[in-house]
Amino acid sequence: MSIYLDNAATSWPKHPEMLKAMAGYLEDAGGNPGRSGHSLSAAAARVVFETRSLLARLFGVAVVDQVIFTKNATEALNIVLFGFLLSGDHVLTTSVEHNAVMRPLRHLERSGVEITVIPCDNRGYLDVEDLKKAITPKTKLIAMTHASNVIGTILPIAKAGQIAREAGIRLLVDASQTAGMEDIDMERDCIDALAFTGHKSLGGPQGTGGLALRPDFTIQPLIYGGTGSFSESEIQPDFLPDQLESGTINAIGIAGLGASVSWLLSEGLPRIREHKKNLIRQFIEGASNIPGITLYGSSNPVDNAGVVSLNLNGVVCSELGMVLDQAYGILTRTGLHCAPAAHKTIGTFPQGTVRFSVSAFTTTEEIDITLHALRAIAAASSETE
Amino acid sequence: MSIYLDNAATSWPKHPEMLKAMAGYLEDAGGNPGRSGHSLSAAAARVVFETRSLLARLFGVAVVDQVIFTKNATEALNIVLFGFLLSGDHVLTTSVEHNAVMRPLRHLERSGVEITVIPCDNRGYLDVEDLKKAITPKTKLIAMTHASNVIGTILPIAKAGQIAREAGIRLLVDASQTAGMEDIDMERDCIDALAFTGHKSLGGPQGTGGLALRPDFTIQPLIYGGTGSFSESEIQPDFLPDQLESGTINAIGIAGLGASVSWLLSEGLPRIREHKKNLIRQFIEGASNIPGITLYGSSNPVDNAGVVSLNLNGVVCSELGMVLDQAYGILTRTGLHCAPAAHKTIGTFPQGTVRFSVSAFTTTEEIDITLHALRAIAAASSETE
Repeated sequence: MSIYLDNAATSWPKHPEMLKAMAGYLEDAGGNPGRSGHSLSAAAARVVFETRSLLARLFGVAVVDQVIFTKNATEALNIVLFGFLLSGDHVLTTSVEHNAVMRPLRHLERSGVEITVIPCDNRGYLDVEDLKKAITPKTKLIAMTHASNVIGTILPIAKAGQIAREAGIRLLVDASQTAGMEDIDMERDCIDALAFTGHKSLGGPQGTGGLALRPDFTIQPLIYGGTGSFSESEIQPDFLPDQLESGTINAIGIAGLGASVSWLLSEGLPRIREHKKNLIRQFIEGASNIPGITLYGSSNPVDNAGVVSLNLNGVVCSELGMVLDQAYGILTRTGLHCAPAAHKTIGTFPQGTVRFSVSAFTTTEEIDITLHALRAIAAASSETE
Repeated sequence: MSIYLDNAATSWPKHPEMLKAMAGYLEDAGGNPGRSGHSLSAAAARVVFETRSLLARLFGVAVVDQVIFTKNATEALNIVLFGFLLSGDHVLTTSVEHNAVMRPLRHLERSGVEITVIPCDNRGYLDVEDLKKAITPKTKLIAMTHASNVIGTILPIAKAGQIAREAGIRLLVDASQTAGMEDIDMERDCIDALAFTGHKSLGGPQGTGGLALRPDFTIQPLIYGGTGSFSESEIQPDFLPDQLESGTINAIGIAGLGASVSWLLSEGLPRIREHKKNLIRQFIEGASNIPGITLYGSSNPVDNAGVVSLNLNGVVCSELGMVLDQAYGILTRTGLHCAPAAHKTIGTFPQGTVRFSVSAFTTTEEIDITLHALRAIAAASSETE
C-alpha cells in the first residue's frame, strides 16, 4: 500500500460515493442536460443543478446560476483574465501565483495589459498594504491565489477584497488549493470571481471545476457555441450560466463532484479542515526536528492550506521524491509545481522542492510513517556525505 | 423501458466497459497525468496516452501528440477559429452549421473577420464547386461540419479538403456527428484540423472531446496555464499537446473514452456504420409511408450519419416529441437543435423538427416500435382534424 501525499495535484482516493454517483448518472440520467425535453435529459439537468446549488451554498453565492462549470480552474481563470482585461488596463497579482494565473497574464502583457507582481515574503505571506499602495487609476483587477500551491501559505483574500471594494476594482481569487478546505464566502469576503477546481479538496473527479461570479460582474465569454437556449440565434446568450457554458458540459463528472461536495457538507468543512491542519502540524513538528531538512513556508498550520514543501541537504529533490516513492511507497510531487515565481519567492528556484500535501482521508499513521522515512533517508544521506 | 433516439445529443447507453475503465482508473491510476513523477501519476499519463493513440489511429493521425484533448467539440472548434483567424481574414462555411461554429464566427465577424456562408440545398447537400468559387485572396479557412446535426446529411469533406489544399488554405472539420461512425482519415481527406466530441458516436462520457491538428498547422492557444512541462517558464510551451492542454485534463473521462474507442475498433467501424445505416434505411422507408409525415434531408442512408428529422402535419414538433416520450417512452429531440441556419436551409425555421438519432446499440425492434407509434399518432391526429 502506498501513501499518497500529492493531494495538491489531485486528491486520491476519492470517496466511494463519487463513483457511485457517476454510475447512477449513467443508469438513471445520461441525457444531454438542457438540450432535449425528455426524461433522461431532464434528469441530467437536475443532477447538474443540484451540484451547482451545493457549490453556491459552499461558497456563499446567492444566485445559483452565477456558478458556472468549466473543465478545470485554469479555464475559469482564463475566462476572467481574457474576458475582462483590455489593453491599457493594469492588474495586480502576487509573487506566489501558479502558471494558471501567470501564463495568461504574461500573454496579456504582450497585448498591452500592465502587470504588477506584489512580492510575498519568503514564507509566502502577503502584506495587503503593498497591494493597496500599488493601485493606480488604471488598475482594474487583483488576481491572486488563496493559497500557494507550493508551500500552502494562505493569503488574506478577505482583506484584499475589502481593498478592491474600496478602490472600485475587482478581485479574482484562484481557490484551486482551498476550495473544499478553507472557509470561503464570496459576499463576506468581497470576492468578485472565484475560480475553483473540482478534483482537489472538493474531492470530485478530474475534468471538473468552475467559476463563481458576482451578479454585477460581467465577463466576455472565451468560448462561443450551442447552449441549448435561444437556439434560433447565432449570437451568444448574455445570461449565466449559458453565456459561459457553451457545448455539452461534463455532467457525469459534475454528478460525481456533487456527491463529493455533499459528503463534505455532511461531514462539515470545519471538521475536515481541523483534521488536515492537525496533520500539517504533526508533519511540520516532526520534520523540523530532522537534521538536514529545510522546511519552507509558514510554521503555523492555521495559515496553511494542507501543503508543505521541503528539501534535504545535499539531496536533489527529484531524487528524494524517487527514494520516497520506490523505497517507501510515499507519493509526493517534486520540482517547481508549475509555479516558478513562488519558488523564486521562497528561494528554491530553479532546483525546486519536495511537496507533501494531505487530504481528508490522510491519517496520522501515514504522516508518522512518512516522518520515519524522512528520518531514515536523512540519516543515510548524512552518513554518505 | 424507454427507447432512446437522441444519440445525436449524446449517446446512451454507454458500453459497460466505459464505466469499468473509469472505475479502474480511480483504483489503479488516479494521479495527475504529467504532473508528478510517482506511480499513480505515471499510470494516469499512460491511460491518457493510450486513448490519444487510439484516436490517432482512428482518424489517421501520424503523430500521436497532434491529438489534443478538450472538454467538448465546441472548445476544439473555438481553439481553431480564435487561434487562427485574424481581422481582415475571410472564412468559408456552410448553411447547415451548428452554433458551435456559427456563434464563434459571428463573434469574429464583429472584429473584422469576413464570413461567407455557402448555401446547401434543402436536403443538406453541398456543391463543392460553390465552395471553390467563393475563395478569394483573403480566404484563410474553410470551416464546415462533416454532417448536419439536424438531418444527418454528410458533406463532401474530402473534396473540400482537396479544394483547400489546392488553394493553399486550411480545412477545419466539425466531426461532432461523424467521429466514431463515418470513415475519417486526416491525411487522405486533406483535413488540417478535426474537432470531435467523445460522448456521441465515439461512445465515451460527457466532458470529453478533442482536436487533431496537422503538424504544419500552428494555432494560438485559447487557454494558457500550467502544463506540467517547462514549469520554470511563465511562457506557454509551443509544442503539442501541452500548448493547447493547459490545466488538469479529464483523465478519468479519457479513460472511459479509451475503453469505448477500443470497443469500436474491435467491433470494426464499417460494421457499426452498416448497422446504423440499416436502421436509418428502415426508419426512412417506414416513416415515408405514414400519411401526414414530412421527412427532411436525404432519402439515401448512405449519405446520412444516423440522424433523421421529420414533422407531422398539424402537430407542433414539441408536442409530437412530448407524446412520443410520455405515451410511448420514445426519447427524441425537438426544436432547432442549436442550428438555426440548418433549419432555414431545410425550410423548418423557426418551428423546428422532431429529430431521431440512432446509436450502435439501437435495434431494429426499437425502430419498428417507433414507426408503429408514429403511425398511431398520425392516425389519431388526422381523425381529430
